[in-house]
Amino acid sequence: MKLMRVGQPGQEKPAILDADGKVRDLSQHVADIGGAAITPEGLAKIAELDPKTLPEVSVDRIGACVAGTGKFICIGLNFSDHAAETGATVPPEPVIFMKATSAICGPNDNVIIPRGSEKTDWEVELGVVIGKTAKYVSEAEAMDYVAGYCVSHDVSERGFQTERAGQWTKGKSCDTFGPIGPWLVTKDEVADPQNLGMWLKVNGEIMQDGSSKTMVYGVAFVVSYLSQFMSLQPGDVISTGTPPGVGMGMKPPQYLTAGDVVELGIEGLGEQRQTFVADR
Amino acid sequence: MKLMRVGQPGQEKPAILDADGKVRDLSQHVADIGGAAITPEGLAKIAELDPKTLPEVSVDRIGACVAGTGKFICIGLNFSDHAAETGATVPPEPVIFMKATSAICGPNDNVIIPRGSEKTDWEVELGVVIGKTAKYVSEAEAMDYVAGYCVSHDVSERGFQTERAGQWTKGKSCDTFGPIGPWLVTKDEVADPQNLGMWLKVNGEIMQDGSSKTMVYGVAFVVSYLSQFMSLQPGDVISTGTPPGVGMGMKPPQYLTAGDVVELGIEGLGEQRQTFVADR
Repeated sequence: MKLMRVGQPGQEKPAILDADGKVRDLSQHVADIGGAAITPEGLAKIAELDPKTLPEVSVDRIGACVAGTGKFICIGLNFSDHAAETGATVPPEPVIFMKATSAICGPNDNVIIPRGSEKTDWEVELGVVIGKTAKYVSEAEAMDYVAGYCVSHDVSERGFQTERAGQWTKGKSCDTFGPIGPWLVTKDEVADPQNLGMWLKVNGEIMQDGSSKTMVYGVAFVVSYLSQFMSLQPGDVISTGTPPGVGMGMKPPQYLTAGDVVELGIEGLGEQRQTFVADR
Repeated sequence: MKLMRVGQPGQEKPAILDADGKVRDLSQHVADIGGAAITPEGLAKIAELDPKTLPEVSVDRIGACVAGTGKFICIGLNFSDHAAETGATVPPEPVIFMKATSAICGPNDNVIIPRGSEKTDWEVELGVVIGKTAKYVSEAEAMDYVAGYCVSHDVSERGFQTERAGQWTKGKSCDTFGPIGPWLVTKDEVADPQNLGMWLKVNGEIMQDGSSKTMVYGVAFVVSYLSQFMSLQPGDVISTGTPPGVGMGMKPPQYLTAGDVVELGIEGLGEQRQTFVADR
């Protein structure tokens, strides 16, 4: 299933994409596409519906594909070739950091370049959406706790991230730095999360053209690993790292300015398109 | 006002402490002590009530003093003498990191030492609770965005924090590593947040005995600073750093083990008491 949220910010309705690509209203059946709706039981109930019997809904805007995310956890330097381009080595175990949940926005919303930014950068990432509380789960059972996947754009301000006194959070948490969606694609539709093409273009030029195949720590490992440190809860989103081709890795580095258009996508998970704008 | 939440986990009722120290039920007036209730308008409504006319409520447990926290932001190395004891220097601007909101618990709940932990440590901190959305606010106006204060225990696993590959989040986010409360004390009751005694005892022995007077970056500065990077929202909690006396600063370092009891408090903001237990 491809679940989504449509409507103006704060007014989004839960919806589902039918087999013909029409968006159907789920709001008579679930309150939102959030933690309660995407548990195994919640998803089983939605799966019983015939999307074609649901009212069609007009799409004026696509919201973030999941609501009420409690934690937005990112894995750093998780593609060996990306680590190399940033001058880092692959860490001996996953590097984790948090993006503020207030950074989450819709997949095609404008991204606001924060005041004082000179190094706003792009990162296409595979987002993993948790569907069941996970604590101390093994890698073998980890996939039972995953509801599905989405495209995640881990927008990053490299100056804020690395030149403004310790810890990456500062450069990762700006408002609108976390477009997720368009869809939460349930895991049954993704045969192998470690074999998905991932791409990103800036103003039409391809910058990232990779695959989740070269991810160092795969989805099941990451879910298990994180659950050793903290409970993962339904609606939590894990952004699993980016393949090579980010702006800071270019020679010379290339960053985004107002008016730039970034398009990105992951095989089977849909596409995003953002215009970058100045913060006034 | 001293606002609080009482009841079993997930069942907490909003409450207020009256002038005689009796806990009065607010649940006929607000849904919870969360973002909506602690805006300037929300607090003004509660202030109109006479606590003595509200039903008394029996306290079987005190919950976290604020519900629905979207961001739990911490300031690192924010006391010059604490920075020194950890071998670090005071950073040129605030170091910020996130604790998972899933770490939040009641002030007297057991704290669970995570599996594999050998370096669980304590940190008494002044918590600042946001009451109004703040973005690009100046230091001069920053206090308008603060609802009040609380005691915050930034429990930390030093091995996870510093020896397990990059970024501090991993050692700060374990379940129960974020006791906050007992009360959200509204800012009108705190004459000077930069002049509050702060203390912490382990098994009755005083370990931290400091004051918010020696905080490097004060509350107003920190609120303004953070708002340059991200929106702060009602219910967000900022834990502003710890004075000297943490376990990792001892010679030799001293860490918590199952059965240890930690008590801590801040002048005018109440006290916490946790028993540390093993995770089974």
